[in-house]
Amino acid sequence: MNTALKHHMNETQDNKARAATWFTQLRDMICAEFEAIEREYDPESTAQFKRKSWDRPTLDGSHGGGGVISLMHGKVFEKVGVNISTVSGQFSEEFAGNIPGATENDRKFWASGISLVAHFASPHVPPFHFNTRHIATAQSWFGGGGDMNPIFENEEDTQSFHAAWKECCDRHDPEYHAKFKEWADEYFFIRHRNEPRGIGGIFYDYVSTGDWEADFAFTQDVGRTFLDIAPKIIRKNMHRPWTDEERETQLIKRGRYAEFNLVQDRGTLFGLKTGGNPEAILMSLPPVVKWP
Amino acid sequence: MNTALKHHMNETQDNKARAATWFTQLRDMICAEFEAIEREYDPESTAQFKRKSWDRPTLDGSHGGGGVISLMHGKVFEKVGVNISTVSGQFSEEFAGNIPGATENDRKFWASGISLVAHFASPHVPPFHFNTRHIATAQSWFGGGGDMNPIFENEEDTQSFHAAWKECCDRHDPEYHAKFKEWADEYFFIRHRNEPRGIGGIFYDYVSTGDWEADFAFTQDVGRTFLDIAPKIIRKNMHRPWTDEERETQLIKRGRYAEFNLVQDRGTLFGLKTGGNPEAILMSLPPVVKWP
Repeated sequence: MNTALKHHMNETQDNKARAATWFTQLRDMICAEFEAIEREYDPESTAQFKRKSWDRPTLDGSHGGGGVISLMHGKVFEKVGVNISTVSGQFSEEFAGNIPGATENDRKFWASGISLVAHFASPHVPPFHFNTRHIATAQSWFGGGGDMNPIFENEEDTQSFHAAWKECCDRHDPEYHAKFKEWADEYFFIRHRNEPRGIGGIFYDYVSTGDWEADFAFTQDVGRTFLDIAPKIIRKNMHRPWTDEERETQLIKRGRYAEFNLVQDRGTLFGLKTGGNPEAILMSLPPVVKWP
Repeated sequence: MNTALKHHMNETQDNKARAATWFTQLRDMICAEFEAIEREYDPESTAQFKRKSWDRPTLDGSHGGGGVISLMHGKVFEKVGVNISTVSGQFSEEFAGNIPGATENDRKFWASGISLVAHFASPHVPPFHFNTRHIATAQSWFGGGGDMNPIFENEEDTQSFHAAWKECCDRHDPEYHAKFKEWADEYFFIRHRNEPRGIGGIFYDYVSTGDWEADFAFTQDVGRTFLDIAPKIIRKNMHRPWTDEERETQLIKRGRYAEFNLVQDRGTLFGLKTGGNPEAILMSLPPVVKWP
């Protein structure tokens, strides 16, 4: 092996490790912040994230890996799950055709990411979804996004949520925000209901500019932006009282969230249909739902 | 048009009308029986089915039609929906390839059916699903089935449910029961959970022996069998008391039912992806569900 190639391969390994480490650090920061919110709401609260590790089954030549589910049930967060995972293996022939850099003869992949869904006790605190990931085949790229799903839309929150993503995106590429916001509007749309899932946010995939450091910096910034904006909106709304009727509306709205994830969400269906861990994949489902 | 062809076409029209009329009659009988069960449980109960009609949008040359949703919320039946519908139109090119008798040049179809899902207040009364349908393209056939989804399996109920279907099937063809029971076991299996949805029952499709009267008689018998066995099992169990813990187990088990219908059920996905009425299609979803 020549020196340049060896250098490239070491660099690639190093990049993967840095991305996976970042997702773990971000997980720790988010969990700490969410636990702090529980304490602020109720100093007596003992709510904390519980962790559960899982290993990926290593069938037909796949390399394995696994992940950790962190789940908390509190007074503010009725249910919040934060998953991290790092897995590698071979795509099935069926999937390989749709994945950049994967070919019939080279179906190997490596993927690491963080994914989060928060459902709140209060109908006035909007559910959040956030995830970022780094994927490597013969190519490598970043993807992710975040969206907010208010039961009762609050214009101020909507504006501050979009503004946070715009500032984040603008720090990296002036074209990112318009493109990734539109992608979110398109992606987080419940087709069979002909209605948006929420107010959107950003959604991005296949980000690979040729400058790995810049792409990684963007994905890190997306994580830090979520860690900044979600707690602000949670703290702003968590003390507002609610009525039984508002709670009922929330439980019904959650049905739409479940429908989207189970019928349409790419990550969910990909995971379920490729033998992923259903407990980790379905941590996104709301704690209580009504379809009256 | 020659006399034989005219006769055949009139007969076909007549058969369609007879099938659609039967599904409506069966709907009426089932609703009356279920309302009677509510009265038996609580003579003061005013629970009754509420009906809501819908029209199929007539986009791109489709002929329209529509259906009626009947929904009841009672003390025994926490939520029960009975849909009937008769629709006709053109399959999309994408679907036409998978449907017997439909070709690229003749994508027209007619379909009529009844579909029912019952979720009970008591964790000791097993949820039931039942449906039968008649479909006509250049060919015509019957399909349907019924399955039972106990939260806590009761061996006696399981046996009487399977025995009812066996007796029904055996009246028509000695090979039907083994075949249709196996099909149910295969169909009502939640792949991503690697667990059966319930205890099965029967599932059949493409029943077209060449003797329309015999096939119609079988599908009518399937309906009468459901109308006989489900009320027996409901009445047998509806007075049993339950604990909060058993109720909790029920709400979690209902999550599996929702997952199956939204991720896997052919009829649900076909309906949602072809612009069907989501309110009618998703009446199957449980009234309250927990994913803790």
